[in-house]
Amino acid sequence: MTAESLTGLIETLDRGAVLTGDDIGPRHYTDHRGEGEVRPGLVLRPSGTEELSRMLAACHAARQPVTVQGGMTGLVRAARPLQGEVAISLERMTAIGAVDRAQRSITVEAGAPLEAVQEAARAAGLFYPLDLGARGSCTIGGNISTNAGGNRVIRYGMTRELVLGLEAVLADGTILSGLRPYLKNNTGYDLKQLFIGSEGTLGIVTRAILRLFPEPQSQNVAFCALPDFEAVTRFLGHMQTRAGADLSAFEVLWPQTYAAIARDVPRVRLPMEPGPGFYVLTETLGSDRERDPEAFEAVLGEAFEAGLVEDAVIAKSDAEARALWDVRDGMAAALSALPDAVGFDISLAVSDMKGLHAALMAALAHVPGATVLIGGHLGDGNLHLAVAGSDGEAAKPAIERSVYEHIGAIGGSVSAEHGIGMAKRDFLRQSRSEAEIATMCALKATLDPHGILCPGRIFEMKG
Amino acid sequence: MTAESLTGLIETLDRGAVLTGDDIGPRHYTDHRGEGEVRPGLVLRPSGTEELSRMLAACHAARQPVTVQGGMTGLVRAARPLQGEVAISLERMTAIGAVDRAQRSITVEAGAPLEAVQEAARAAGLFYPLDLGARGSCTIGGNISTNAGGNRVIRYGMTRELVLGLEAVLADGTILSGLRPYLKNNTGYDLKQLFIGSEGTLGIVTRAILRLFPEPQSQNVAFCALPDFEAVTRFLGHMQTRAGADLSAFEVLWPQTYAAIARDVPRVRLPMEPGPGFYVLTETLGSDRERDPEAFEAVLGEAFEAGLVEDAVIAKSDAEARALWDVRDGMAAALSALPDAVGFDISLAVSDMKGLHAALMAALAHVPGATVLIGGHLGDGNLHLAVAGSDGEAAKPAIERSVYEHIGAIGGSVSAEHGIGMAKRDFLRQSRSEAEIATMCALKATLDPHGILCPGRIFEMKG
Repeated sequence: MTAESLTGLIETLDRGAVLTGDDIGPRHYTDHRGEGEVRPGLVLRPSGTEELSRMLAACHAARQPVTVQGGMTGLVRAARPLQGEVAISLERMTAIGAVDRAQRSITVEAGAPLEAVQEAARAAGLFYPLDLGARGSCTIGGNISTNAGGNRVIRYGMTRELVLGLEAVLADGTILSGLRPYLKNNTGYDLKQLFIGSEGTLGIVTRAILRLFPEPQSQNVAFCALPDFEAVTRFLGHMQTRAGADLSAFEVLWPQTYAAIARDVPRVRLPMEPGPGFYVLTETLGSDRERDPEAFEAVLGEAFEAGLVEDAVIAKSDAEARALWDVRDGMAAALSALPDAVGFDISLAVSDMKGLHAALMAALAHVPGATVLIGGHLGDGNLHLAVAGSDGEAAKPAIERSVYEHIGAIGGSVSAEHGIGMAKRDFLRQSRSEAEIATMCALKATLDPHGILCPGRIFEMKG
Repeated sequence: MTAESLTGLIETLDRGAVLTGDDIGPRHYTDHRGEGEVRPGLVLRPSGTEELSRMLAACHAARQPVTVQGGMTGLVRAARPLQGEVAISLERMTAIGAVDRAQRSITVEAGAPLEAVQEAARAAGLFYPLDLGARGSCTIGGNISTNAGGNRVIRYGMTRELVLGLEAVLADGTILSGLRPYLKNNTGYDLKQLFIGSEGTLGIVTRAILRLFPEPQSQNVAFCALPDFEAVTRFLGHMQTRAGADLSAFEVLWPQTYAAIARDVPRVRLPMEPGPGFYVLTETLGSDRERDPEAFEAVLGEAFEAGLVEDAVIAKSDAEARALWDVRDGMAAALSALPDAVGFDISLAVSDMKGLHAALMAALAHVPGATVLIGGHLGDGNLHLAVAGSDGEAAKPAIERSVYEHIGAIGGSVSAEHGIGMAKRDFLRQSRSEAEIATMCALKATLDPHGILCPGRIFEMKG
């Protein structure tokens, strides 16, 4: 069906640009979530911006809905095809341009994997700070479309802050080229902002100029035990003031989460026994190899003397730093090990975090055997949760509703870094007003009048 | 005329909300530029968001064009009224909310002056980093609408990076409230980005949640003489790597500009005699009062030994730091002292800066007695120029055209931080493509269908 209305287009494309039938493998219709897969009738694989422009113009004319695919590592079911959609994969657009050392920038195609961009920067003695677990598979285009976060947001910002220039193709094939590398560029509307974090619904990102940084000269990591949440808040303030702009991580594990890592993730070597308090991994990335470790120890010493930190392990080597990060990263495994759990990725005020575990347990009073695990990027207000009940799968809808309603009631964000996609669409109204959603719809209707780009992701258009 | 179509509205407003006739003083129709003033028939002064919403709904219904006014310190003739426009001034919306220490944020109304917000932050032991010469008069709403830059962009970013949450009113009176304080908030489109830097053409900013930082514990300033531009580029790289995230200023004066300060700005005490090389003011804002000055001196010492810096004065007190900044700030006076000069605010690649003076002199070969002064925020790619010819006023149009065409030809930005307004509208196409401008028009038509908000600023709508 889809192939028919696009026959004219397909005839003009080379063989590598089109997949049909059995040539379409699972990576074009599965993602981390698994359920409800639909194999698309057609996969288009542009080799460049002009070709993508022709593809989209044809889809636009044919009212052919499309989904856009990068590394398929998203967590909100945005990229895999719905019934009747054509998949457009950026997997052939992986070019990584030369690093501009003076400008501290690099120009890359959307399909370039994050890790390859990190390596290209490093080879030029520079640093691309975005980093996440999926680095080997996820693509720059996907990072931009989801405004990816990760572990170093506190120091370098979200992907939005790392994009200097952007090229995107609109639904009708119009190429919007804003490939300028300037930090300061107030020449009318900053159109690139429209495409960052809009999950492919307003245009397809094709190329970007990314901001690079000097390679950090020192990495300083400590894992600390704190008596209570009050100490966590004060320790964060202390680190922000005394470690200043070098502070690159402030990751917190709630006591239940640290205990779960101890119990369920045997590969992790714990730096200290589980107890009733909170656990913080903190890190600085500095510019002075000699002075930084001493300064880091001094700042931690002050926190120790002030009674904020009860116990601490400071990494003395790269291997020890990795081992401490493994403890923090053990959280993902501990959260996954909780049977039939629902995962959450939320932002909320630090002042609301103190009572979060108790508040959620109260909100989940109707869920038999509720368990709540909490941890994450407290330094930038973003926590990850896993919540499960003893009824297993059957409890999930009630858990989802109760947790999101609580987050909405305290003015939190139902998605800090993963996005909305299909998975959180029903809960968007917990964080956004009707006027905001109506404005999103108006923007979508303006830039994609036939609604062909990733329809139904984030919100549903009326009519 | 305007008063008539809005009679119904005006009758519902209290006396403080309306100015007519002789009550309308020059501050509602003059700005720094002076020429071509039009006194508006009506000034509306909302006391809050709801009232502004009613005002805009009435203007929308009456197809009444409006201009939006903050501190009237803009440099591109955007805020002063055109014939037939009503002025909406935010001067009664100046509330500054309590600082949220844990969240490191502050909620303010758009009419609050920048300096008052800086002081409120400081009183709470925190720091709002945006800073510019007009701090006492310019308002947060104006800063946001123009995406203001200033002297510390290299360290803290533009205003865009400092806005966590935003409330704005659309042309039809719809209130878009996105007052959430989160660094990470991927819940659909980031609508606040539309209003940052769009110079009042898409909506009127009413309130914002601004990001605060720890107050810097040390300020370290040096003024340096460098042999040539090659050394400037290498010194910038050195400072970025070795001072790292603390680097807060890297300001450069071209030799002609430093000589002009020496000649025309007698109040400035020069740290060194003018010579044929370049002059750099560099600064770090650090977190360690004791270690930072020593580290700063060590980093400068390395640059000295590498031959990048030939002479340097390091400030030993706050007064000395201010005196060195006065030299840098003497540039504005030197540029103003150039008779009948045209000012420019541009971004360009560092690699294009090296030959900029010679290239501009060549582009201006047809302008008798052309003089070019250059300096500014090289660390973030932004330079300010003053260009004059010996024919005085008569040479201005040719100078403007030639300089902007050169900037366009090398892919630069015709406005780094001042915006476009009316003053640079004719040169927008040097930096933006037809597709980009068409997309701006489409967004404008969607959010302001009757085109009442600051019409003709940035671009002209067709039809």
